[in-house]
Parts: sequence; structure tokens; C-alpha cells
Amino acid sequence: MSDQMQHITLASRPNGAPTLDDFALETGPVPTPGPGEVLVRVHYMSLDPYMRGRMDEGKSYTANIPVGGTMEGGSVGEVIASNADGFQPGDFAFGPFGWATHAVAHAKMCRKVDPDSAPITTSLGVLGMPGFTGWYALHEIGQPKAGETLVVAAATGPVGSMVGQLAKSLGLRTVGIAGGADKCALAVDTFGFDVCLDHRAHPDARSLRKALAEAAPDGIDIYFENVGGKVLEAVIPLMKEHGRIPLCGMIAWYNAGGLGAGAEAAMSVPALWRTILVSHLRVQGFIISNHWDRFPAFLADIAPKVASGDIKLVEDIADGIENAPDAFIGLLEGRNVGKQIVKLI
Amino acid sequence: MSDQMQHITLASRPNGAPTLDDFALETGPVPTPGPGEVLVRVHYMSLDPYMRGRMDEGKSYTANIPVGGTMEGGSVGEVIASNADGFQPGDFAFGPFGWATHAVAHAKMCRKVDPDSAPITTSLGVLGMPGFTGWYALHEIGQPKAGETLVVAAATGPVGSMVGQLAKSLGLRTVGIAGGADKCALAVDTFGFDVCLDHRAHPDARSLRKALAEAAPDGIDIYFENVGGKVLEAVIPLMKEHGRIPLCGMIAWYNAGGLGAGAEAAMSVPALWRTILVSHLRVQGFIISNHWDRFPAFLADIAPKVASGDIKLVEDIADGIENAPDAFIGLLEGRNVGKQIVKLI
Repeated sequence: MSDQMQHITLASRPNGAPTLDDFALETGPVPTPGPGEVLVRVHYMSLDPYMRGRMDEGKSYTANIPVGGTMEGGSVGEVIASNADGFQPGDFAFGPFGWATHAVAHAKMCRKVDPDSAPITTSLGVLGMPGFTGWYALHEIGQPKAGETLVVAAATGPVGSMVGQLAKSLGLRTVGIAGGADKCALAVDTFGFDVCLDHRAHPDARSLRKALAEAAPDGIDIYFENVGGKVLEAVIPLMKEHGRIPLCGMIAWYNAGGLGAGAEAAMSVPALWRTILVSHLRVQGFIISNHWDRFPAFLADIAPKVASGDIKLVEDIADGIENAPDAFIGLLEGRNVGKQIVKLI
Repeated sequence: MSDQMQHITLASRPNGAPTLDDFALETGPVPTPGPGEVLVRVHYMSLDPYMRGRMDEGKSYTANIPVGGTMEGGSVGEVIASNADGFQPGDFAFGPFGWATHAVAHAKMCRKVDPDSAPITTSLGVLGMPGFTGWYALHEIGQPKAGETLVVAAATGPVGSMVGQLAKSLGLRTVGIAGGADKCALAVDTFGFDVCLDHRAHPDARSLRKALAEAAPDGIDIYFENVGGKVLEAVIPLMKEHGRIPLCGMIAWYNAGGLGAGAEAAMSVPALWRTILVSHLRVQGFIISNHWDRFPAFLADIAPKVASGDIKLVEDIADGIENAPDAFIGLLEGRNVGKQIVKLI
């Protein structure tokens, strides 16, 4: 093991869509764990849309990444040194290790992962934050009932595919939206969506809305919102009375930065507000990090279903930390198929 | 008693703000009650902002008023003929009698009003639909907690004044918004708001936001939304994490009709959506008519407080059915002070 580690820093704040120049691969000494901390050799890094928000200035979920700082994110790897009770070298741990080959973190921020019960990559997707996001928000905010209709975009992503599979198992009609015919086939064949619409086949919200109206002939009871943009505009007029919109992301607008003039929406705020009023909709934004107390219940419910194959997963694994920026750019463009992961070792 | 009655019909659909020409005062025979129906001589008519929506074509709360049809609304009057059990001539009743001197309605749609326990006008405001709207939405959606801050516009109206008084009694800091110094003084002196801002003193949302930030230095936990427009734009960035927005009206935009190009909002949908996401807001539209099952609980709570003077009310009473259109136009412009009523007898 080298005493040097690699990490990727934010070289500059993106102006719209990030480019490779906004990232820098740097080398430095492997850090030393302090009291209560563990040192982890990262095996797999997670790439998630929320990271785009952290690259901007201004208010986001949490304090943003400073220029020159290491890109943040969750990863899973092997503990190679520990000053914390409960972690031994050789253990595997998930934690906020960032885009780095090695990292230290306080043990309280880490979660032990059992490599014998499931592949450790699942701690980044179906059994990690994205799967938990879908599980929590569908149940707590979506309040699904058999016979209702659910729409979710990014249907083959780790959130959308969890939402779709859970909703289907509860007796809902599930309508996915994805980019491209291949992803739509995957959504139906692997994740069991009743139908999946290719948003790339629809140049505007009006066209997509027409297709949605056919796919959801009784209207939409739950719109699980993780994309915004054209999909939101297509969906809103189709929402049924007392519909629910858990709002956990808006990837279509992330590259619009401060969401000023760059973020176009044909729908006006008054029109959106009017629909919420007239159709008695409930819109609720949430950040899953406020709800970790429910994570054990999530794992207890979903881990056996992953093991049995009742819940399916698809991963898209890039190779090498140096390829993380390109994979992240691809994630924002929808190039990935399934949960985007970067393999480091 | 004459055998003729007067009623006001929708002469034409308004293009923007209604004008007097959009209404017609007509005369016709007093209707005869059918089985299960009562005939009422209306004493007081209620004018409410929601009626503006019923004048437009297209989706609104309920089926809209046809051109030539009688303007809809709740009224209170004396039963002069009854084919229904439970109602006798001489009883007073509230019901959907419309803008008319006389009307029949099925007894199931009517509610007996006791003129000895409170002035019958209160059945249109503080002890009627507006008061119930404020009571229900504050408790059920607003979930107020002592020490929090609430903002409500139209603070001297029957909804806003109920919301403010209830919130104050629960230990919240209450910030009202109203049009003009006189209403602001009324909001503070009569309805007990901690502070009331005059939206007319602020030409744009930015200016109003600055004043709101001073009036609500800890941020806003509950924004009781009944106006939209400049106030909404001022409030949204000041919402605290986990803030709640009961959405029961948007009077600022009602005259924009279909809410297309005519309804201007400087804030974009992406910016609004982002704030809901990042601050984990809950926005919930509701129509009080879905919740009449809770009306007895409301009356049991509030009627004694009105009788004791713990809940204050202010009424603005126009005289004569012929003046209802002008009073309604004034309501949309904010000319009224307190609950707008029209006295017919």
C-alpha cells in the first residue's frame, strides 16, 4: 500500500453543465485517523445527482464544496486503520469519504457493511441512500393505495426503480419515464413498470403529456418528483384530486445553477399554484438525511427482498477514480444505465 | 311579500378584473320549493374571493357559472316555506342561495342558524366558511407550534383574521400583511397581530421581503397562503426548513383568468421548486368543502370564543342586492375592511 492517495477536487464552479476542467485529480499523503476515526481504503464510490448542487455557490442541502475542496459523496471500502470502537481493520464500511481513494471519517458517520450478506456496491444504491430515499418518500409522503397510478421519472435509476417496484408490489399502476428505448425496455422488463415512456421521443411537455394521459388514463395520484423540467410540466395538469408529490430532486434543472434565467419553464408559478389549489395537491420537499432513524426499518424490509430477487437492481460501474468526473457528467446527461458507481479497487 | 324576486346573473365572462357590465340585475318569479326543499328570504349574502374563479371558463373548484346563470354563493335568511323536516317558516338558515333575494335549496344543503346565539351575519364569516377555512387549515395543515412564526396576508379578512388570532393564542409570532395603514392598524389593534406590513408601501416583492425579514427575524414557519402574487414571492425565500404552506387561495391572480400570460410572476417554477426541495417545505392545497365533517368541531371551539369576545370580528356590510357587483369588485381590489357582506333586508 502506497502512502499516497488520490482524490478529485472541485477546480472551478461549473457554469451550467460541469466539464472535465471543473475537476482536478490530485495526489497527497494518506491521512491519519484521529480519535474515534477510521481510515478507509475506498473500493466503490457513489455518484449521485445531488452532488451537482454542492458544486454551486449559495444555498443547497448543506454547506457547499469550496473551490479546491475534495468532491463530497458516499463510498464503501475496507477499514485499514481504526481508532474507533466497533471498527476493525478488515471491516467494510460505508461513509462520507468523498471522491478519494482513501479517507478518514468519524466512526459515527460510518456504517458497517457485511460483504457476505450482499455485494458491497448495494450499500451505495438499492440498499443505500437512493433506495432508502425511494422507500421512505413513497411510504411517508406518497401514501400509496392499491389501484392508484404512480408516475416516476429516471425510472431505471436507483430511486425510480425502487419506487416503481414498491408501488407495483402494492397494487398501483406504475408509469415510468426514462431516456431512450433501451432504458424504457429495462424499466418494463426488469423493474416491472406497467409502461415506460421515452421522454426523448417527446420534444416538449405537451407531447409528453399526451402520451402520459394515455398511459395513465385515470389520472395520476402520485408523482414522485426527482427531475423537474419537461416532465413536471407534463404531469401537473394530469394530477388527480388529492394527489401527492414527494419532491426529492430536480435533476433537469441542476445545471441551471442559481435557477435564474437559465432555468426555463413554460409553466408559470401562478398556473402551478392554481393546480395545487384546485386539485388539493400535497407537495412535500424532503431530504433523506433528516430521516436516518428510519434506515434500519428500511434495511429490514428491503435487504431480504434484494436477496430473494424480489427487488431488482442494475448498476453502471465506471473504472478508476480518474474516470469519475466523466461518469458524473454522464449521470447528469442520463448516459448511465442504473445506479452509477465508480470502482477504485 | 312580493311574488317577484331579484337576482344577479353573470352577464359576461370577465376579461381580467370584472366590471359592472359583467353582472345583470334581473327580476323573476319567486321559486316554489320542491320536495325536501325550503324557500328562503335572504337577509345577508356573503361575497368571497373564490366566486371570481367560478366566473371563468375552465377548471375551478366546481362547475363554473354559465353565462346568464345566477351568481353562486352562500347566504343566510329566513325560511318562508318548507317542504323539509327540520325546517319551519321563521327559522333562519344558511345555504347556497346565490346572489338572490329569494331562493330554494334542498334542506340537506342548508344549516339552521340560531339568531339568539350570535348575529346571523356571523354565519357568513367568523362562524362560517371563511372562519372554518382558517381554523381547519391552520390546525390540520399548518401544525402550529408555540414559538414559531406565521405569516398571513389579507390579515383583516375573515380568513386571515381567524388564522392570526388562533395562531397568536397558540403562542406563535404573527405577522400580517394588509393593504393600507388603516387595515394594518386594525390587524394589530383588533386582531392582535404582532406586526402588520402594508403591501402597498412596497412596490415589489424584493422590498416587501426586506420588511418581512425584519418582521420575522427567525424566518417563517407557516405561510398561510390566500393571495399569491407579490406576497408569495416575498415569502418563499424566507421560509424555514420544514415550513408549511396551507394553500387556500390566490386572490392576487384570480383576475388573471386562465393564468396564462396575464399572470406575471418574477419567480420561476424552478426557483420555487428548488426552495420547496431544499427547505423541505410542505405545500398543500385544499378546498374547505371537502371537510364539512369537521364543521361541528369548529363551531364548538370557536362559537364560545366569539361570544366571549376572545375572537374578534369585523364586517363590511354593503346595502342592497343592486350593490353586490360593486362590492364584489371592491373585494377583489381590497376596498373592503373585514368580512364583505351584502344586506338585503
